[in-house]
Amino acid sequence: MISISSEQFKITAPVKINQLPTVFPLEESSRKIVNHLKKTRKKLGGLQNTLYAHGKYAVLVCFQAMDTGGKDSLIREVFKDFNVRGVVNHSFKSPSAKELRHNYLWRHFVALPERGKYAVFNRTHYENVLITRVHPEYILAENIPGIESVNDINAAFWEKRFEQINQFEKTIADNGTIILKFFLNISKEEQKHRLLRRLDKPNKNWKFSPGDLKERKLWDTYMKCYEDIFNKTSKPHAPWYSIPADDKNTARMLVANILLEEMQKYTDIVEPELPDKLKAQIPDYIKQLEND
Amino acid sequence: MISISSEQFKITAPVKINQLPTVFPLEESSRKIVNHLKKTRKKLGGLQNTLYAHGKYAVLVCFQAMDTGGKDSLIREVFKDFNVRGVVNHSFKSPSAKELRHNYLWRHFVALPERGKYAVFNRTHYENVLITRVHPEYILAENIPGIESVNDINAAFWEKRFEQINQFEKTIADNGTIILKFFLNISKEEQKHRLLRRLDKPNKNWKFSPGDLKERKLWDTYMKCYEDIFNKTSKPHAPWYSIPADDKNTARMLVANILLEEMQKYTDIVEPELPDKLKAQIPDYIKQLEND
Repeated sequence: MISISSEQFKITAPVKINQLPTVFPLEESSRKIVNHLKKTRKKLGGLQNTLYAHGKYAVLVCFQAMDTGGKDSLIREVFKDFNVRGVVNHSFKSPSAKELRHNYLWRHFVALPERGKYAVFNRTHYENVLITRVHPEYILAENIPGIESVNDINAAFWEKRFEQINQFEKTIADNGTIILKFFLNISKEEQKHRLLRRLDKPNKNWKFSPGDLKERKLWDTYMKCYEDIFNKTSKPHAPWYSIPADDKNTARMLVANILLEEMQKYTDIVEPELPDKLKAQIPDYIKQLEND
Repeated sequence: MISISSEQFKITAPVKINQLPTVFPLEESSRKIVNHLKKTRKKLGGLQNTLYAHGKYAVLVCFQAMDTGGKDSLIREVFKDFNVRGVVNHSFKSPSAKELRHNYLWRHFVALPERGKYAVFNRTHYENVLITRVHPEYILAENIPGIESVNDINAAFWEKRFEQINQFEKTIADNGTIILKFFLNISKEEQKHRLLRRLDKPNKNWKFSPGDLKERKLWDTYMKCYEDIFNKTSKPHAPWYSIPADDKNTARMLVANILLEEMQKYTDIVEPELPDKLKAQIPDYIKQLEND
């Protein structure tokens, strides 16, 4: 039995990014970790059916990570026992021309899960205080009134954006969306190994983009932005979890474990009952069918 | 080894609905059938990754069935080894007020899969020549010019609708969407058992709606409409498969088997290669990373 608590990974007080571990030492074998993942995701799949039947809450699961952080394969593994009916994945790439004609939160709002369902954001609305903060010139494409040059993008601009994101999350949380945010934390060294693996294996080549190396050079700037994100937006109703992700199996198991632990707290999520009036008629319905 | 061919289930010539089997006799044990399903869906999951990487084709998988036909659980089981990133489920219920302000195909068009992905339609655009045909008064809510009363909804109206649906599918097929349409064929007797099970088990009660019994009375009308659907809209680029569905495991295994067989025909779906220009630079990139 692997026994961990989601509290160990939750960001509840100001953090320094370089103090967040990328490795989580476990005594268990890799096989045991995978077995624990399998059991956990099965239970999660069961809870998801109840969430669907109950039909009042929605769940938003956010994933952020540096390139090669393992988001895609983690999502595949953690949500394996979900009914595809109950979960929608949204991979947010560069905004389209149409999306840029809306405010930056619009495409995320539109993609929110409906009641009874999960949405997985693979990259999230936090890219709006991350990649655009590392590359402020991208903001200009958003055509925000008053933002005519990168000189207009000052500290107050980012403060406002954090406030807007916090308000966005508070609004949806107050209306029944459960929010969980995961940062898959890999070390710069581990990223190097993973990029080299892509380059070394001809059949993995296509995943490589020279842009990956350019962004890697900005590693420290990204880390600074992440630190700000965690310290400004980890809230009780929308917490950040920093997941040591240098080992993929461990990261998958931890995310599944946290999801399960958090969802189990919602003891009011139960299958609905038939209204009493209808219940009283069941014997009649049965008779009707039996004579059919 | 279970050996079946998708051709056995494909509708390629005019059919009589009551000649389509609801039972598919297999000598294999239930355990073997489930094992075959598991192996097949694993392979499907692998192909789906390649479809995603290739990024040119999309796949639309349509499911229709009478109530209790087993669509939901079949979708859960068949797509279990898919990455949620690559498949989106759309359960089409009664159209919303907003949807009714568009033409009937709009909400289906909007839900089509993007290149590299699967969309599963759980109930489909065929409800527009099915439930609305059994209950023509529903058509009036669509506010179609010239359709003022049910008397305006004549044979020509339905012919035109079939033509529109065929054209819709031809257009998307010509532009790279692979279309597969499954009818889960249960007997009226089997539906009776399944409805009774819902009523007998208190924890299944909530799935029951008195409407189910009302629609059951219209069984023969539905069957007549389905027959028309198959005979008018099963095309080489968008075939209907009639799946004997009285046994759930068999139905799941058959659908997975057909999907796999059909997808394997697309031998041009392969992982992309890095452009030659980039490939030539790989040694440089590796050196750059190694010195990092």
